[in-house]
Amino acid sequence: MPDSRFHPRQGPFALGELAQQTGLFEVPDGIDPALSVQDALPLEQAGKGCLSFLDNRKYLPALETTSAEFCVISPDLADRVPEGTVALPTPHPYLAFAMISQALYPGTAPVSQVHATAVVGDDVVLGADLDIGAHVVIGARAEIGDGAVLGPNVSVGPGVVIGAGCRIDANASLETCILGQRVHVQSGARIGPGGFGFAPHPQRHVAVPQVGRVLIGNDCHIGANVCVARGSGHDTVIGNNVWIDNLVQIAHNVKIGDGSIIVAQVGIAGSSKLGQFVQVGGQAGVSGHVKVGNGVKIGALSGVMNDQPDGAVVLGQPAIPVRDFWRQLAAIRRLTTKKGTDR
Amino acid sequence: MPDSRFHPRQGPFALGELAQQTGLFEVPDGIDPALSVQDALPLEQAGKGCLSFLDNRKYLPALETTSAEFCVISPDLADRVPEGTVALPTPHPYLAFAMISQALYPGTAPVSQVHATAVVGDDVVLGADLDIGAHVVIGARAEIGDGAVLGPNVSVGPGVVIGAGCRIDANASLETCILGQRVHVQSGARIGPGGFGFAPHPQRHVAVPQVGRVLIGNDCHIGANVCVARGSGHDTVIGNNVWIDNLVQIAHNVKIGDGSIIVAQVGIAGSSKLGQFVQVGGQAGVSGHVKVGNGVKIGALSGVMNDQPDGAVVLGQPAIPVRDFWRQLAAIRRLTTKKGTDR
Amino acid sequence: MPDSRFHPRQGPFALGELAQQTGLFEVPDGIDPALSVQDALPLEQAGKGCLSFLDNRKYLPALETTSAEFCVISPDLADRVPEGTVALPTPHPYLAFAMISQALYPGTAPVSQVHATAVVGDDVVLGADLDIGAHVVIGARAEIGDGAVLGPNVSVGPGVVIGAGCRIDANASLETCILGQRVHVQSGARIGPGGFGFAPHPQRHVAVPQVGRVLIGNDCHIGANVCVARGSGHDTVIGNNVWIDNLVQIAHNVKIGDGSIIVAQVGIAGSSKLGQFVQVGGQAGVSGHVKVGNGVKIGALSGVMNDQPDGAVVLGQPAIPVRDFWRQLAAIRRLTTKKGTDR
Repeated sequence: MPDSRFHPRQGPFALGELAQQTGLFEVPDGIDPALSVQDALPLEQAGKGCLSFLDNRKYLPALETTSAEFCVISPDLADRVPEGTVALPTPHPYLAFAMISQALYPGTAPVSQVHATAVVGDDVVLGADLDIGAHVVIGARAEIGDGAVLGPNVSVGPGVVIGAGCRIDANASLETCILGQRVHVQSGARIGPGGFGFAPHPQRHVAVPQVGRVLIGNDCHIGANVCVARGSGHDTVIGNNVWIDNLVQIAHNVKIGDGSIIVAQVGIAGSSKLGQFVQVGGQAGVSGHVKVGNGVKIGALSGVMNDQPDGAVVLGQPAIPVRDFWRQLAAIRRLTTKKGTDR
Repeated sequence: MPDSRFHPRQGPFALGELAQQTGLFEVPDGIDPALSVQDALPLEQAGKGCLSFLDNRKYLPALETTSAEFCVISPDLADRVPEGTVALPTPHPYLAFAMISQALYPGTAPVSQVHATAVVGDDVVLGADLDIGAHVVIGARAEIGDGAVLGPNVSVGPGVVIGAGCRIDANASLETCILGQRVHVQSGARIGPGGFGFAPHPQRHVAVPQVGRVLIGNDCHIGANVCVARGSGHDTVIGNNVWIDNLVQIAHNVKIGDGSIIVAQVGIAGSSKLGQFVQVGGQAGVSGHVKVGNGVKIGALSGVMNDQPDGAVVLGQPAIPVRDFWRQLAAIRRLTTKKGTDR
Repeated sequence: MPDSRFHPRQGPFALGELAQQTGLFEVPDGIDPALSVQDALPLEQAGKGCLSFLDNRKYLPALETTSAEFCVISPDLADRVPEGTVALPTPHPYLAFAMISQALYPGTAPVSQVHATAVVGDDVVLGADLDIGAHVVIGARAEIGDGAVLGPNVSVGPGVVIGAGCRIDANASLETCILGQRVHVQSGARIGPGGFGFAPHPQRHVAVPQVGRVLIGNDCHIGANVCVARGSGHDTVIGNNVWIDNLVQIAHNVKIGDGSIIVAQVGIAGSSKLGQFVQVGGQAGVSGHVKVGNGVKIGALSGVMNDQPDGAVVLGQPAIPVRDFWRQLAAIRRLTTKKGTDR
């Protein structure tokens, strides 16, 4: 059970109420919609009063032994739910679980405060219901939208715009950027430092002023210790609904389309453009000036050196279509296993 | 010689005293145990009054020309020590060197203070002999054990537990975590941000509340700008005596066994389990939901996609037994060097 | 056009004045040196009063349709400049552009201040014309050179030396280091934490005191969230005119020669030595104790395991001469495409 030291729980909620709120499942015939849902937990941890989920056959063994009272589940697996567990069939079990879990664990309610130790510059525009933590520094002319939460030791540069409902966690810093609404920037992320632009010179490389910005849309997630460099003249642009994991590097002038998902430690080099709903696996790299189409999936550790058409699924260094990658790997293996070779 | 601007030296110590303290070597017959050891340095830098070490044949040339007065050394190499240097044979030369070096360079003694600019929340439990630096922020209900040192601009979230003797360096941040004793967290590390968990959605990916914690054992080292995400429901667990280098990513629900060593820029994806005394080379990656056995060695830059049995030594992308890796590489090389191939 | 919210523009400047200041081109016959240059922009964005540049044939299409009034350009491409644009031939177009852009966008002028919330330790030596931001912490005996700018929430450890004209951005931290003049440390960088040095031990790895320093020369650029560990006994040394991109790891005792360029997410392991004007592509790794000669180019994602002679150009894991890399790759491809193979 989640540690209440860190994760205060709300509720309980009536099953019927959750069905209505999520709009993703119905209370089955013969089940009382007033039944109480107290917690949302993985199958192995869930018990009486708890709701769990299953959307992947791989976890059927955990389903068979679960003590969960409720389970949101893919319709084709609903008959596998054990006796004592109420099956709640839905085409989107994980989404339903996420929404119910959000109701139960909405996070600590922000305090309405501008902490006495916060330093707020001239002509800053502060919205309503802000939670500005201790030792936050906000530069001149910045704008902070309603309900934003800025954690301790956050630095906000001059002119930065933070939309309503954003959350900026401890020790993060923002400069030269404009954030939409409900953007979550985790601890230590760096948004808007100047990009890696200079004219090489034997005595002293000459910095090219990086006069662009970082523009981030709505509902984005920027992981801990991520770096997003501002544009050199054009802007660096992250669309709406983009999730970026920890320690990712986004270079100047990069564009990332709506709904894209970037796993930890990925690097996207300068001026590359990712389409919508692109997925990039952990530690992969994308070279500079590359166009990656919509819906492309890039495997972990890959190195993408060339443009990729919509829907491509690639892997390897340099990245190639995933089928070719596995075929080449098999051929390499045969080199050392075939009889008659000169080992 | 170490710069006393940064590294004030203690001592000198009598040789016999150091032999006793470390318990790792004896003062040889005919050598005065009252001889004074003033410094511990590499072979090339050591002179009169200095102790050095050798545990690797590779550095025999440096031994031959050293001016060190003392040398802790593997017994089988002891006869290679030049005239003028006292050989101190021991099965653990580097360990002896480390212990003596700690005696000489214990680091700056912490000041007993809670700096006037530190912000300490309600119901925080503060131990004895703390050194809480300038602009530190400590959230409500946190507990800080005896003798802990928190550097400038550190942020500690509500409810966080920091064990006795921990050292948290400048600008690091901790949330949703419980640390054992004598854990060293270096500058800029992020312990406990929420993991990369969400239900994908075309308009707005729905965050799954990350209701686990990060648990860290005793005597761990967490490098600069490392990220350790908290668990999603289960906990992220780092055992005792684990050393993690800079810029490493540890995802939610990962378990790392006692004594493991993780080199810089490694990424361990969600829910993977590493056994005890695992070694992971720089920039390597481990996929999600993988089990890595005890004593496994993963080479630098490797990509581990599958479970690994105890004691495995693997390399490559995907990682394979190291012998197979080198054999495949040799076979690939032959493709372009064999006579008669269609180059 | 750059957003004046973030990038206030200076000027305009007379064309003749810029020709003289840069010393890189002449005002062509028949062109009035009093003509006004108001902005410096990429070819696609430049219009009336704007100067742009071209040094790469690849961008000739953008040149043909540009509305730029002026264009610094390689002499051999000067005749491709469209009517309405003044060609300014120079052997160094990008350098000229950089210098003119610096004149137009010198950045926000630093305020002469030590912010009231800054905490300055005992015996600190402060130069003239400093801009010490809010919540900065400076340890005892540190020295800050004339004209240095320290952003909000920066931490400077005891004894640290920061040369004249340095710029340390928000939330960065420095310890045990000595910086030359005009070094730019971006947000969140960690200079000087102890390196990854310990004697392995089953119960408790024993830390080896890291008693070296980090020495950084003049005119260096250290990217956001970079980590540079201090030496273990020897120093970690970064020469003059070295540019290091975001999220790079530099381990203890590493030496990097003048003019070198290290792209994002690179890792250089302990005690390796890079010569002058080395270039390291993104996400590449260099093993420990390796010598990399002058002018070596290491491709992105490479893993350098062995010494490299001056001028080598290498790629791959392990890194090999780039020609061999592509030849091997071609051979691997043929394995799966040749007729008659046992696919």
